[in-house]
Amino acid sequence: MMGEGPAVSTPLTMADIWETYRSDLDEVEDLVRRNLNSQVDLVNTVAAHILSSGGKRIRPLLLLLCARLCGYTDREHLLLGSLVEYIHTATLLHDDVVDDADLRRGRQTARKLWGNQISILVGDYLYSKAMCKIVDFHNQGINEVLSDACWRMAEGEVLQLYLSGNPDVTEAEYLRIVERKTGALIAAACRIGAIIGSASPEQQAALFRFGQHLGVAFQLADDTLDYSANGDRLGKALGQDFSQGKLTMPLLHLLRNCREEDRLMIRDRMATRTVTEPDLLRILHLMRECGSLTYAMERARTFIDAANQDLAQFEDSPSKRALWVVADYLVSRDH
Amino acid sequence: MMGEGPAVSTPLTMADIWETYRSDLDEVEDLVRRNLNSQVDLVNTVAAHILSSGGKRIRPLLLLLCARLCGYTDREHLLLGSLVEYIHTATLLHDDVVDDADLRRGRQTARKLWGNQISILVGDYLYSKAMCKIVDFHNQGINEVLSDACWRMAEGEVLQLYLSGNPDVTEAEYLRIVERKTGALIAAACRIGAIIGSASPEQQAALFRFGQHLGVAFQLADDTLDYSANGDRLGKALGQDFSQGKLTMPLLHLLRNCREEDRLMIRDRMATRTVTEPDLLRILHLMRECGSLTYAMERARTFIDAANQDLAQFEDSPSKRALWVVADYLVSRDH
Repeated sequence: MMGEGPAVSTPLTMADIWETYRSDLDEVEDLVRRNLNSQVDLVNTVAAHILSSGGKRIRPLLLLLCARLCGYTDREHLLLGSLVEYIHTATLLHDDVVDDADLRRGRQTARKLWGNQISILVGDYLYSKAMCKIVDFHNQGINEVLSDACWRMAEGEVLQLYLSGNPDVTEAEYLRIVERKTGALIAAACRIGAIIGSASPEQQAALFRFGQHLGVAFQLADDTLDYSANGDRLGKALGQDFSQGKLTMPLLHLLRNCREEDRLMIRDRMATRTVTEPDLLRILHLMRECGSLTYAMERARTFIDAANQDLAQFEDSPSKRALWVVADYLVSRDH
Repeated sequence: MMGEGPAVSTPLTMADIWETYRSDLDEVEDLVRRNLNSQVDLVNTVAAHILSSGGKRIRPLLLLLCARLCGYTDREHLLLGSLVEYIHTATLLHDDVVDDADLRRGRQTARKLWGNQISILVGDYLYSKAMCKIVDFHNQGINEVLSDACWRMAEGEVLQLYLSGNPDVTEAEYLRIVERKTGALIAAACRIGAIIGSASPEQQAALFRFGQHLGVAFQLADDTLDYSANGDRLGKALGQDFSQGKLTMPLLHLLRNCREEDRLMIRDRMATRTVTEPDLLRILHLMRECGSLTYAMERARTFIDAANQDLAQFEDSPSKRALWVVADYLVSRDH
């Protein structure tokens, strides 16, 4: 395939996109590995473990596509993409400690293999390493958008922990968490693409909103998968969010729509953190009965629609069509 | 007292310095509090707990004095000092989790009061908040020096953890840890003072080295206090470093200089993490007998001497004399 993407007439798939941008994404991988040059071997080992655990590099891909959409033709997006991935990875290392998680993408977590202490410190290392490399770009806009994203992510994570186990969380509060913990960095990646593409302030703002909407949609889909996926394939158990006291969209819907006795059961199990296998099966049954999973996925879809609207001001191009496909992919049930 | 400090003839004490710079340091306190404006109350509560726990604001003070030494007369050092303090506090929150610490400066740690999860996330919040505010200064030099310091601190912390419990650690490895985990941020604070004071590259480098030497000296003194202080007054138990598997200067000296049977006992207790009260008393006795505490403090003094040498290129001034006093204070046994 020559040029930037498949011919206009071909309906694009995610496979086409991986194929079209393979060499760029391979270089991102290469940069991710090469910049892990700590003098402390253990840092390299731990960071390599999580960085090579099958992440889909969605953030570097979005940064790349947004840059291309804005006419960018140089190569800085590759290093920038790898640094956004470092920050993402740092948050995963800390999240796994906070969530007491043993598995991620079907593999043992760093904290399970090397302990919480190492996970915390290597997370700090990756984050600060990324900030060092970012400031080397001498780009005020990028410095601002990325430090702001990190701050909003941290705030989202604390808010989630603060509200955990509280069944009175509202949908608005849930969305406030998700916007921050997942939306912030994806939005930043998209805006950085716009910045290096010398986009107008309006275009930058539109791509930031695009990423924000995408991030929320992705998290809604992910939260729904937690109650519906084949646990084995995703490498994590079903209903983990419930066990961790996380009130997510499907559960919020269920709490609003189930019968009083079920609501009391759910509130009790959430408050006491004593959910059993039969309880969980009951909850999954009720979710299907009440349409909670469908509802959450519909909500995810509305955010994808909003994201696609954010692209309205950009002319048709292979990158724009690729962004649509990525948006769809993020809420597909199978990734 | 008018002007920048006490008259030339007066021997300065630390009390004079607190007094002379009180209004500046009060404003740093005020900024520390005012910038804690998270929408998530819990962030403010936890951060306020640790930020108001009697820290001596040594880093803001050094930043201030280095700026003044370079002729700076404006007010930006106050906000910058408060942000360096945020970063310092973020590392304390993470360190307490990594060290399983229940007490800091005689008060319960945040992780003891609110749990490890909150400590990790509020640490992330403070760090990223500081980076947001730092990039608002639009000063490339400050961005670089601070992100670099954070990265080196993280590396030092991982290295310390990696080598913990290993009695074959060398003095050079120990100093490599200390230079990073403690020296890096103090050096950055001093260099930031030089940067806003528009100092020459040579002066910036000299003040960076000054901070680095000061940081190492401070840590050496602190590590010695761990084996010699009145535990009650410092708010932490004696020999904590040993229990945590940290090989510090006094212990490294002892291992090199004690009899074989004592060395074997120490290596065994370190390897098995089974040190008892009588073991610890024996170690403290041996340290006094072998002069290990004296040796470590002498080493601290050599770093203070080196720090003072770093100031040689600056003309005599109240700020320069104040920096000498602060340097001395950092290795005094009573703070």
